[in-house]
Amino acid sequence: MKIKMLTLSYKSEKIPASPIRELAPLAQAAKKRGVKIYHLNIGEPDVPSPKEIRSGFKNFSLKSIPYANSHGEEKLLESLVYYYQSRFGLKDLTVNNFQTTSGSSEGILWAMMTTLNSNDNILVFEPFYANYKSYAVQIGATLSPVTCDIKNGFHLPSEEKIERKINAKTRAILICSPNNPTGTVLTDDELKMILKIAKKRNLWLISDEAYTELIFDGKKQKTILSFSDSSNIIVLGSFSKTYSLCGARLGYILSQNKNVLSACLRLSQARLGAPFFEQVVLGRAISNIKDSYFTKIRKEYQERRDLSVSLLNKIPGVFCPKPEGAFYLLVELPVADTEDFARFLLTDFRDKGETVMIAPAQGFYETANLGKNKIRVAYVINKKNLRRAIELLEIAIKKYGKK
Amino acid sequence: MKIKMLTLSYKSEKIPASPIRELAPLAQAAKKRGVKIYHLNIGEPDVPSPKEIRSGFKNFSLKSIPYANSHGEEKLLESLVYYYQSRFGLKDLTVNNFQTTSGSSEGILWAMMTTLNSNDNILVFEPFYANYKSYAVQIGATLSPVTCDIKNGFHLPSEEKIERKINAKTRAILICSPNNPTGTVLTDDELKMILKIAKKRNLWLISDEAYTELIFDGKKQKTILSFSDSSNIIVLGSFSKTYSLCGARLGYILSQNKNVLSACLRLSQARLGAPFFEQVVLGRAISNIKDSYFTKIRKEYQERRDLSVSLLNKIPGVFCPKPEGAFYLLVELPVADTEDFARFLLTDFRDKGETVMIAPAQGFYETANLGKNKIRVAYVINKKNLRRAIELLEIAIKKYGKK
Repeated sequence: MKIKMLTLSYKSEKIPASPIRELAPLAQAAKKRGVKIYHLNIGEPDVPSPKEIRSGFKNFSLKSIPYANSHGEEKLLESLVYYYQSRFGLKDLTVNNFQTTSGSSEGILWAMMTTLNSNDNILVFEPFYANYKSYAVQIGATLSPVTCDIKNGFHLPSEEKIERKINAKTRAILICSPNNPTGTVLTDDELKMILKIAKKRNLWLISDEAYTELIFDGKKQKTILSFSDSSNIIVLGSFSKTYSLCGARLGYILSQNKNVLSACLRLSQARLGAPFFEQVVLGRAISNIKDSYFTKIRKEYQERRDLSVSLLNKIPGVFCPKPEGAFYLLVELPVADTEDFARFLLTDFRDKGETVMIAPAQGFYETANLGKNKIRVAYVINKKNLRRAIELLEIAIKKYGKK
Repeated sequence: MKIKMLTLSYKSEKIPASPIRELAPLAQAAKKRGVKIYHLNIGEPDVPSPKEIRSGFKNFSLKSIPYANSHGEEKLLESLVYYYQSRFGLKDLTVNNFQTTSGSSEGILWAMMTTLNSNDNILVFEPFYANYKSYAVQIGATLSPVTCDIKNGFHLPSEEKIERKINAKTRAILICSPNNPTGTVLTDDELKMILKIAKKRNLWLISDEAYTELIFDGKKQKTILSFSDSSNIIVLGSFSKTYSLCGARLGYILSQNKNVLSACLRLSQARLGAPFFEQVVLGRAISNIKDSYFTKIRKEYQERRDLSVSLLNKIPGVFCPKPEGAFYLLVELPVADTEDFARFLLTDFRDKGETVMIAPAQGFYETANLGKNKIRVAYVINKKNLRRAIELLEIAIKKYGKK
């Protein structure tokens, strides 16, 4: 008796592949043929982690690795309280306002799971972090996109336009500032407008703040909690970008809402704890990291932003606004289909044995056919390489046009 | 304008708290009062991790922690292929049969998510690993429990009885052998029966094999894949119990089903990767760990099982079958409500300033009111402490009876 081929769940068929990572096999093949690739495609910081963290890993001795506390290792939670006091001046937070997560990714999933039922809507501003799509599929919720305009530096449209997208099924607004994939930092007025809309329409407000330390031009970093301590706010924090620890898989949820925190603790208990080793090392290190570390990384990324924006805008047909933070640029190219162009870069194009890898922007949009002439650039390589990568982009655009 | 208190999603209200961990605050309070607690309540191995792994952590140097590959770090995947060849004689597996997960917990969630739709049923054998309940709630699926009998050492009931629980909504069978919380190892005939039922009724078969190295009495460890390479099988593997690495949060899915693996890879891409550091260390170490390590841990746990079973069955009114593996015992006590008894142990009972913490078994059952006179004992403390812990249990049962 042969078994029939079983079908998968509806949801699992709908989980999208990563828009960046599906180009990976082409990149691997190129590398095998000896081609050097400059990576502008992935948001993985290249600056070294603080020395306090690096030496912590080095000096940690263990007999075995036990489960971490489901809420979070105490010292890590305490250092988060310290961090929000010293960096944001928030003095009323306690360890009970935090819940550790296995990367901010899990935080997004849990924030959606605790606030949305199947078929509920969540308002997002496109372009947005592509993985929100996968989490929405897992929850069975629908993303309602409000489109932001490149001409406006991807800042928010009017209150009226945003409200028009809210309907009876809308339960939450999701913002991300500094933004992935645009680098845009919402102004104080924009944050206040979002808070006002959320209150008026009785919506949850989920604020993805993974890039909060990367705000340029001398401006202070900010969190939505500096503007309101309302119980409808869920902040998602991460150690990945601030400390160059993407693979540590540690993040946290921060809220004044006890019910959200209770639900997240129960979700945490179901999978026992976030990684233990990393929590211990970070818990010991964070309070010792000096402000100069943040100043240094901010300066480095700001210089790269200035360089990239200037070089990109010199390429004929290319347009790139100058964003206020993170380490991304959302760039318009004189190319009809950047997915095809990205493949061209990896398969056909070479200049002195080198090429560049980019992230096509269509995956960052929910509305069909938007973003097709755009790419995301992550400036997480040093300035010399950044210059060469953008030069390669310029040469490739010319060659691609003549295909 | 004050915001209305927003309601949470239906699901988040239903996520259960961990049946073990909700006693934790009582234990903390007792510790603060200077009471020594012997922990029989949590399944966290105490034997040291292999030296190959410990020195790997010690000697790892890093500038930053990058994202791990979404599929899994190559060396870790290769060492899994090696492990299944050398330990199970399975020669046809490749890295493409594996998908890393953030702990086996995530593997259970993904196995359910890829195979079950909302309102589908999944057959489980109770008592079962309590966290299956949380995952089912997250998926919106229903656990259909087939009750196993303590008198029978928690082995499976007849094929007929099992089939009677399968209906039109049943999509999968979930087994766990060696079992948490009973320690029971399914016989070859039982595994073949389950395979037969799954084929006949066209069901997915999810096999949770976290304790596969812990089979006693000189018997070889086994996996369901030794009996069938059918595409309806999804194996969940873990490094936590085998190598005493619970807090590393690393596990894997193993299957012959390309569609399942593709869906799990996309789920993995959505949260980028499993912890990087641990993958690199384990990837380097696993092929160097000698068989003697497994022999040693098996011997240690087997001796503890023998000791515990013998001591427990000497206590009047206590009954405990002698299971074939893992490091758990499911024990019947002469107590009507072990949740109340567990609280009594932590709040009222003391003997020479010491007490013992246990896991009430009701949380391991889906059927209402089952397991109320049972506890789970995890023998993950050394033999001297195990003796004392069981002695404390005996004294406490007497005192509790006289309350």
